[in-house]
Amino acid sequence: MTEREAGKRGLELLMRVRAKRPLIHSITNLVVMNSTANVVLALGGSPLMAHAREEMAEIASLADALVLNIGTLEPSWVDSMVLAGESANRKGIPIVLDPVGVGASRLRRESVERLLRLSPTVIRGNASEIMTVAGMTSRSRGVDSLEKTDEAREAARSLADSSGSIVAATGEVDFITDGTHSFEVHNGHPLFASLTGTGCGATVAVAVFAAVCQEDPLMATAAALGCYGLAGEMAAEKANGPGSFQVALYDALFNLNPQGALERLKIQAT
Amino acid sequence: MTEREAGKRGLELLMRVRAKRPLIHSITNLVVMNSTANVVLALGGSPLMAHAREEMAEIASLADALVLNIGTLEPSWVDSMVLAGESANRKGIPIVLDPVGVGASRLRRESVERLLRLSPTVIRGNASEIMTVAGMTSRSRGVDSLEKTDEAREAARSLADSSGSIVAATGEVDFITDGTHSFEVHNGHPLFASLTGTGCGATVAVAVFAAVCQEDPLMATAAALGCYGLAGEMAAEKANGPGSFQVALYDALFNLNPQGALERLKIQAT
Amino acid sequence: MTEREAGKRGLELLMRVRAKRPLIHSITNLVVMNSTANVVLALGGSPLMAHAREEMAEIASLADALVLNIGTLEPSWVDSMVLAGESANRKGIPIVLDPVGVGASRLRRESVERLLRLSPTVIRGNASEIMTVAGMTSRSRGVDSLEKTDEAREAARSLADSSGSIVAATGEVDFITDGTHSFEVHNGHPLFASLTGTGCGATVAVAVFAAVCQEDPLMATAAALGCYGLAGEMAAEKANGPGSFQVALYDALFNLNPQGALERLKIQAT
Repeated sequence: MTEREAGKRGLELLMRVRAKRPLIHSITNLVVMNSTANVVLALGGSPLMAHAREEMAEIASLADALVLNIGTLEPSWVDSMVLAGESANRKGIPIVLDPVGVGASRLRRESVERLLRLSPTVIRGNASEIMTVAGMTSRSRGVDSLEKTDEAREAARSLADSSGSIVAATGEVDFITDGTHSFEVHNGHPLFASLTGTGCGATVAVAVFAAVCQEDPLMATAAALGCYGLAGEMAAEKANGPGSFQVALYDALFNLNPQGALERLKIQAT
Repeated sequence: MTEREAGKRGLELLMRVRAKRPLIHSITNLVVMNSTANVVLALGGSPLMAHAREEMAEIASLADALVLNIGTLEPSWVDSMVLAGESANRKGIPIVLDPVGVGASRLRRESVERLLRLSPTVIRGNASEIMTVAGMTSRSRGVDSLEKTDEAREAARSLADSSGSIVAATGEVDFITDGTHSFEVHNGHPLFASLTGTGCGATVAVAVFAAVCQEDPLMATAAALGCYGLAGEMAAEKANGPGSFQVALYDALFNLNPQGALERLKIQAT
Repeated sequence: MTEREAGKRGLELLMRVRAKRPLIHSITNLVVMNSTANVVLALGGSPLMAHAREEMAEIASLADALVLNIGTLEPSWVDSMVLAGESANRKGIPIVLDPVGVGASRLRRESVERLLRLSPTVIRGNASEIMTVAGMTSRSRGVDSLEKTDEAREAARSLADSSGSIVAATGEVDFITDGTHSFEVHNGHPLFASLTGTGCGATVAVAVFAAVCQEDPLMATAAALGCYGLAGEMAAEKANGPGSFQVALYDALFNLNPQGALERLKIQAT
């Protein structure tokens, strides 16, 4: 698949999102509830945040995809995540897991272990998070001598193999793999790192695309990260700092269209 | 009452808000805590968010109005809502109920049933939410053959009759009724739908106005929705998408004044 | 110390923040989680929000400073604050306490009493909050006949004496004292009051600076409030209201640099 073909496919999926308006159920952290709801809306989806265990099964029955994000974790929320995930699996909708700060505590590692049993469709994290999760599920491959980037890729492939999930390690270049096939996404901008919740925003973008492309979650993940990163590039052109970047990011996601975007999407099969 | 008279009355209430700076206690959902606090502030009120049952009675004793919003619900929060509502009733301050997503789960429906027993002064929701709540409190009037808009209005009137509350069904046109008298508000903009929490923002705007106009909550609700919708129109003129719309919305609410607004307010007694 | 010397020292600390990127652990209120994370990032720090008691010790072991903010309080969160504070004290990192709305309820007063036992490095509040906390910890000095501003200063000094903390009473002029030495900061802008969470933003700014200047938390607090207030002044020059002010505030914090700022910082030893 050429970069142009991948870009075309990505933009077709964006148009499918706009037509289908998938409902994304998120159980997510308190910091990014508002910002990730706005990412879902700007892309054309419909956000629903709910975490009470009493309503997990009913909410899941309405949703087209489920986001599980472990930031600002509490044990009772993980119980709800498991309930929602089991309902999502029964219904057959994609689950996207964001292991925010998984290396920071035993609670987070153990929670991710529980959530991995749900067989998430996609796991999206930064290099360090992906390496931590990979280390929990597979024996070390002795990658200590590798470069950091290569190490993260090895970890992503290893995690994809052991979990059966698509794994996306995002950063300056995003790496997306099912263990066998992979994409690199070269869209993005350093200002993402100056704003809170932009990784969590990438995660919900993946859920939005995966909701309308269950036949190819690897492509959906690459397309989502390409569109999200490109919107960031467009936003950065209008921004003077993180405040104006955030505003312009929502606008750019909302206005993203095949005409303007195709030449600039850098989604590469590797 | 002519449209011009209604607009004048609405702007008098806005000026009263700015003079009195009413304190609005909200027990609301995690997604919109920040954005609705900013709506209260931009209009001239003072926001206070608190949900611990231990402090409900004291907080209520300070407040000029109470907002109960059931998004991201937990059962323990509903207990606090009931406590706060009982205190608000003892003190005689208005309660505004927002039945967010009430159709999504049994937990939400049962919670709204409990909250309706507090006799809220105003219930604000979209057409679908109002129809769901109306269906919980009154026998069907056989409105299946009506148009969607007419159906929502019938539901609003029916709910106002059965609950004794002012009911506001907001949408492209807002419909506000006490069961007998009604207003339509034709202010607003499609960009509201591309941003999270704008319905919840309308709800707190209603609370701000109701706090300073206990003698006429029907008028207060119509005035609040007119001012909020008009600020959205003004914001849309400067916006390129949902990000810049949100920024311009807070600015427009803050700068709203009788000089610029009177000609553009479309509050119609019906 | 002249105003120019104080400004120079403040900007040196800002540069130290940018070099060290201190990790700020906040247990804070639900309204400002996103906005204060963005303040930390814009200044050059790294925010981490976590409140589950199961991970408090581990998170504290990673952090360079701890913020405790009692807005939207729940008793279980205070338990976590105490655990995190004890870990912070064992590790020797600064604790910054924000007694949001402490006068509003017994729960808040009792929680602040518990948190004062952690010997916070800095207590930051508005005049009314500082006076309330001071009244909890020391006998009245009979300041009823003083002007409001003088009364707040007396309360700040008294609280600093009784608690051993640096106390910052912020407002039109910020007053920072260790009971003996004091600073006034004359930077700031009225638009701060039209936006939610700007006081909480000042608190995290203090934590960011205190994290890199443990040898002089009084200076760090004054520097933080000077930089934060000046960024607000710069933001106000580009703002049309609270929405655009917030955007420009993050941008200004991000872009703040010694060249532009030194002439405008008004940090005065008193």
